[in-house]
Amino acid sequence: MSTFEFVNPVKLQFGAGKLALVGKIAEQYGCKALLVASDSAKPTGVLGRVQAALEESGIAHVHFDQFMQNPLSTLVDDGATLARKEQCDIVIGIGGGSAMDMAKGIAFSAINEGSIWDYIFGRRQGTSALPIVLIPTTAGTGSEANRTAVFNNPETNDKKGLVNPLIYPKVAIIDPELMTTLPKRVIAGPGADVLFHALESYISKNSHPVSEMLSLQAIELIAQYLPVVYEDVKNIAAWEKVTLASTLAGMAIDCAGTTLPHALQHPMGGLLNVVHSEGLAAIYMPFMEYTYTAAPEKFAKIAKAMGVSTEGLTTMEAAAASVEAVKSLLSKINMLPSLGELGVKEEHLDWLTNNALTTMKVVLSNNPKVPTEQEIKEIYRKCL
Amino acid sequence: MSTFEFVNPVKLQFGAGKLALVGKIAEQYGCKALLVASDSAKPTGVLGRVQAALEESGIAHVHFDQFMQNPLSTLVDDGATLARKEQCDIVIGIGGGSAMDMAKGIAFSAINEGSIWDYIFGRRQGTSALPIVLIPTTAGTGSEANRTAVFNNPETNDKKGLVNPLIYPKVAIIDPELMTTLPKRVIAGPGADVLFHALESYISKNSHPVSEMLSLQAIELIAQYLPVVYEDVKNIAAWEKVTLASTLAGMAIDCAGTTLPHALQHPMGGLLNVVHSEGLAAIYMPFMEYTYTAAPEKFAKIAKAMGVSTEGLTTMEAAAASVEAVKSLLSKINMLPSLGELGVKEEHLDWLTNNALTTMKVVLSNNPKVPTEQEIKEIYRKCL
Repeated sequence: MSTFEFVNPVKLQFGAGKLALVGKIAEQYGCKALLVASDSAKPTGVLGRVQAALEESGIAHVHFDQFMQNPLSTLVDDGATLARKEQCDIVIGIGGGSAMDMAKGIAFSAINEGSIWDYIFGRRQGTSALPIVLIPTTAGTGSEANRTAVFNNPETNDKKGLVNPLIYPKVAIIDPELMTTLPKRVIAGPGADVLFHALESYISKNSHPVSEMLSLQAIELIAQYLPVVYEDVKNIAAWEKVTLASTLAGMAIDCAGTTLPHALQHPMGGLLNVVHSEGLAAIYMPFMEYTYTAAPEKFAKIAKAMGVSTEGLTTMEAAAASVEAVKSLLSKINMLPSLGELGVKEEHLDWLTNNALTTMKVVLSNNPKVPTEQEIKEIYRKCL
Repeated sequence: MSTFEFVNPVKLQFGAGKLALVGKIAEQYGCKALLVASDSAKPTGVLGRVQAALEESGIAHVHFDQFMQNPLSTLVDDGATLARKEQCDIVIGIGGGSAMDMAKGIAFSAINEGSIWDYIFGRRQGTSALPIVLIPTTAGTGSEANRTAVFNNPETNDKKGLVNPLIYPKVAIIDPELMTTLPKRVIAGPGADVLFHALESYISKNSHPVSEMLSLQAIELIAQYLPVVYEDVKNIAAWEKVTLASTLAGMAIDCAGTTLPHALQHPMGGLLNVVHSEGLAAIYMPFMEYTYTAAPEKFAKIAKAMGVSTEGLTTMEAAAASVEAVKSLLSKINMLPSLGELGVKEEHLDWLTNNALTTMKVVLSNNPKVPTEQEIKEIYRKCL
């Protein structure tokens, strides 16, 4: 165990029915809220419930009614302009990772002028941000519990995260009831992402004893309960476990980051708008085969946390079993796409490889075994 | 799983050698530090090292050179007076639980006027506190990671905690190297307290999934590594585990509180100045015998975390095994005193029982099985 730092100031308001608290929570931080919501937050009624709760607490609100998956930084600029124009003093994000990351970016850019890319690449330092309250409506990104927000750059096609303590949410309202109407695809994709976050943060070279505790707990919960909610979307007890896993994994990546799969997925999100979790899932099995021998103790513990009976196995055998366990879990939730199905072609591989090496160097270096240019291209090619 | 809240804003600076960072850390929060240190911090050289590091960063400092175990609230008043007089804008606590709690109380009372007991009993609300940096020199209390500070009232003999988010430390510097000269008694007592915090927070009716994760991790680490450092005080790798367990347990009690043993120990601390961990240890076996049948699943998990092979046992058998496991651990570190050895006599039992029922009602109610007046007296009597 080497030295480490750990802090996570986000207040988690966890449990069925907690959405109703949003007015009481918001009034502690502001008087006028900018609402940033995913498209689905309207038809599901969640946006309306938030608006009603805010009104009950006397909080004015403005809805920034633009949204996109893999949000462009220009959309963040538009939201920040609206927040300033309307003099909003709090930002509430409602949705999956894209909506929550937009909310974080808008809260940051409402205060800190100029291009957000200057802050992302560390060329400028932020001073503060509007207070942020996040309400996840999928169990996947964990964005509600960390200081990262990922955006696409329309000029360069870069997809990259602002990582800044100023965008830690003040409060995350994690209400498992909001999950009980999700379509299967939106259970599987984000659910797989929880596994990916937990697994990659666990094996990351930057992991430490606290992040490892969070990661392993998340792996244990998601492996056991994701298949349950996939088959029975109304199972609120299982959703409690899955949403908790999502948040814990979001805390874990805040400490330890992600590794090779995220480094290879981001270029696909940037160039081809591939859905985050699907791009990751397509890469996962070759990534695990490539990596597990470089950190067998950790992969063995992953296998155990996923319910594999590892007694009597050597460490390397147990580690190998983790590859099968992940494959089996992804298979149960129909999340084993090929990159070809996601629109990636042989002709993209040079750009993707080069972009991964240039924009995702740090993430690549977190992996227990750091791939060469040739190996990256090979992993992409195996997944086509 | 019911609904819960979780937040812990303390930044943990963890690892061998981190003490050297105190100057750099303090300069983020203030210009002039009040140092509150245990008596041992001087001869061990830790106080001097802190002073030197502060000077290197240009931070002025004043040493409040009074200290006592089980600190009186009047001592806190004196420290707060000094902090105001010297215009200190940060408080640094160095030592075990008593010194760290004094630092927290002084940081609070330097800002909030009047008797601290008004705030402890909720008759007044605080507004803010001086920023607090804590440096534990024992692995036990976990005070570095939570918002509790316990004091004795010289007028009433009450021993009770201020529990207030204003006294969360900004930073806890947890440096395992500081433990490698501790005498056996100061390994055993605080070390046992880690187990007690972890165990009681785990079985508490107020526990939740996050606190339970923290508690179980602390139990696992302390059970395995406390006997190691007890026998080999220079074992820095084992100290890393023990200090981490202490901090995690301190976070866990911040969520879930403690239970019956702490409720029965506080009156002894108040009336007879019994050392915290020794008073607890004297009560522990009758407490466990009394309680485990009321929460067998939890005690079974405790047994497993302590390394008991529970396979093939019924839940109740595994739960019963936790009693033996705790006894065995306490025996290894020579921490099975009787109350008689600690100065408690039959004639004290009425006062102790009555004081526990009046000042520690909430803590008593956290226990899976809440004792009657008669049962409390009986538990005390068994330990004489």
